[in-house]
Amino acid sequence: MRVELINTGTELLLGHVLNTHLRFLAEALFPLGLHIARQVTVPDGPVIRDALADAATRAEIVLITGGLGPTTDDITRESVADWLGLTLRHDAEIMRAIEERFARRAIAMSPRNARQAQRPPEATVLWNHHGTAPGLYFPPMERGGPAPSPHLFLLPGPPRELQPMFTDSVRPILEKVLPPRPDSTMRSYRTAGLGESAVEELVGAPLLALGLEVGYCARPGEVDLRLIGPDAALARAEAVVVEKLGPHIVSRDSRELENIVVDLLTERGETLAVAESCTGGLLAHRVTNVPGASAVFLQGFVTYANAAKTRTLGVPAELLHAHGAVSAEVATAMAEGARAAAGTDHALATTGIAGPGGGSEAKPVGTAFIALATKLGPTIVQHHRLSRDRATFKDLATQTALDLLRRQLL
Amino acid sequence: MRVELINTGTELLLGHVLNTHLRFLAEALFPLGLHIARQVTVPDGPVIRDALADAATRAEIVLITGGLGPTTDDITRESVADWLGLTLRHDAEIMRAIEERFARRAIAMSPRNARQAQRPPEATVLWNHHGTAPGLYFPPMERGGPAPSPHLFLLPGPPRELQPMFTDSVRPILEKVLPPRPDSTMRSYRTAGLGESAVEELVGAPLLALGLEVGYCARPGEVDLRLIGPDAALARAEAVVVEKLGPHIVSRDSRELENIVVDLLTERGETLAVAESCTGGLLAHRVTNVPGASAVFLQGFVTYANAAKTRTLGVPAELLHAHGAVSAEVATAMAEGARAAAGTDHALATTGIAGPGGGSEAKPVGTAFIALATKLGPTIVQHHRLSRDRATFKDLATQTALDLLRRQLL
Repeated sequence: MRVELINTGTELLLGHVLNTHLRFLAEALFPLGLHIARQVTVPDGPVIRDALADAATRAEIVLITGGLGPTTDDITRESVADWLGLTLRHDAEIMRAIEERFARRAIAMSPRNARQAQRPPEATVLWNHHGTAPGLYFPPMERGGPAPSPHLFLLPGPPRELQPMFTDSVRPILEKVLPPRPDSTMRSYRTAGLGESAVEELVGAPLLALGLEVGYCARPGEVDLRLIGPDAALARAEAVVVEKLGPHIVSRDSRELENIVVDLLTERGETLAVAESCTGGLLAHRVTNVPGASAVFLQGFVTYANAAKTRTLGVPAELLHAHGAVSAEVATAMAEGARAAAGTDHALATTGIAGPGGGSEAKPVGTAFIALATKLGPTIVQHHRLSRDRATFKDLATQTALDLLRRQLL
Repeated sequence: MRVELINTGTELLLGHVLNTHLRFLAEALFPLGLHIARQVTVPDGPVIRDALADAATRAEIVLITGGLGPTTDDITRESVADWLGLTLRHDAEIMRAIEERFARRAIAMSPRNARQAQRPPEATVLWNHHGTAPGLYFPPMERGGPAPSPHLFLLPGPPRELQPMFTDSVRPILEKVLPPRPDSTMRSYRTAGLGESAVEELVGAPLLALGLEVGYCARPGEVDLRLIGPDAALARAEAVVVEKLGPHIVSRDSRELENIVVDLLTERGETLAVAESCTGGLLAHRVTNVPGASAVFLQGFVTYANAAKTRTLGVPAELLHAHGAVSAEVATAMAEGARAAAGTDHALATTGIAGPGGGSEAKPVGTAFIALATKLGPTIVQHHRLSRDRATFKDLATQTALDLLRRQLL
């Protein structure tokens, strides 16, 4: 079944609010075998009706977000009822729920809120436990015209109201409505250490030859590969992907590299410290973005100044003088110093030139040395030429460091 | 002039990537007096052409993002040329730029990248300094049919590439193309420490009374205020804004809080260290995102484990035992310990409960203590209740810490 999403809200089009609905709903619909085929953002106003009429020409399921509030620019309820030829009526049960919500929070209710208690009798109420506006579900109905209407869901705009409503009310309805799953599923692979075109060159032709739909998505230092098709072809694709991409495969879902590293360390019961110069804290930030990272990540050192490298990590001043702070020798000493200072099983270190200043002929902006001191063997140090853009440089340097550790933990 | 935005990319519709283009472009177009009237996301494929044909029936300016990469699912260039009836030709200058980019990074170029050097001679190249895919601008052209084509911009999908391309290349073209807006300029203020509705309550009515167009844009911990109107009214607005918002004003441009803090430290010739528990490196990361931060930022300590707080920062074990790691006492000891260990003029410290686990009745998820040890006076410590969402929590805690320091440096 084809799904389309209509987001309403002038605040989205003005850029005042970031639209996260597409991402949330796409991820929430995927386990049901549903894909959003098209998403549109329209302003509050009569254009909502046009967008719905347009989507209904293509889609069997239409989700509309926003415009269910109490103010005069909230007209989604009216627009949809009007398009379906239905009449809004006051619903005493909804009204009571809204009044109770205000009473519980000891806030005076505005008479405007009564608008939110209106619904056509044909619609099912989707109760809102996190706000006043209930959602509505309209099952398909034969209309005067030739086309049947889609399964139509009206959902509130605030994500903290929409998200639980989807889980509690929308998903159960969809599960009843959906036909049994066809023989086509999706499999995805996250890879590190290869560019988008290199990934396509390695696996593109053989995967297309299996009759699969193949998609790529690149971000700094990683490429996602997505395959859609029958299970038998996906099983054959697995062998191709593993053979060609091997240790570049980070995960078979959309978990970040830092999640994989924290999971691997947790499984092994091992600990990590980091010593950062050029990445300036981003490496520790990424690791600590993972809930539960505190079980394996003990400490980070952001040793920006040379004196800090010497004082905190014990990097010899002579080493800094002889090779410069951006060198394989100093990266090695930082990693080993961090591992000793924090008493961990592994320690990663980064030193490099993030730019825009500080580059030279021998060590241009983008130069990075990444080191791993580990109980598994001798310290490993790598020399890379990364981006000349400061933000991308930091992303790539942390990506490279995390991937270096990941491969040692496999 | 009416603007519409077409985002292409199956990864957006699958929810693998959050679409931030609408927000960025809406904010970037606002100072030009342009508003996005409609935004649509379509998958990679021939539907791009339909979406363009549809948008062109309404809009004078159409922006298309994504689908300019080297792989076979990147067909925006072809779809647009086809719709306009133009022919793609190899452009030797683009090819050279792509080759130089690969050479600089010492990466072997795939023959597939040659696709990115194709353009119709009628299109203007928008150079990409952060990736291989150049953008293209098609000025309006009379076609075979009755309707003229819009101003058409093809932009790369990665925000890191799109955003500077907009500023460097798209904006100058739009400025030439747009009708002059005599006697109307924009002024913007970035504020910290107030919510969007609080800012609106303080300044909204008096600014509207001056006849200005007023826009707000909220992000975690900060609100941008944008005013458009005649210079005389903007001058009167300045007095209103300064009186009502006072020290909440961070800057009069779009510089980040961390840039302001680094600038203030640089002017004063003073130095900073940070000690982070709950923010896990993000505070150091933000400070080191500022080019030239190394002149003032000496060292960061990410002391995630209690043992690290004691060993590295000298936080007494009894203090941790008596008050817990998340306490005003420990925040104070961390800041003072970091200042002493790094030998800096100022040190910021954060400790808190980022969640999802670790909360209690007395100290729920979202609790944060922020401390500043400074040569300017006694150590300051603040207790905050921030977000229960881990990522937002880290953003808000670092924002709060940076703003605490900024106010001391004013």
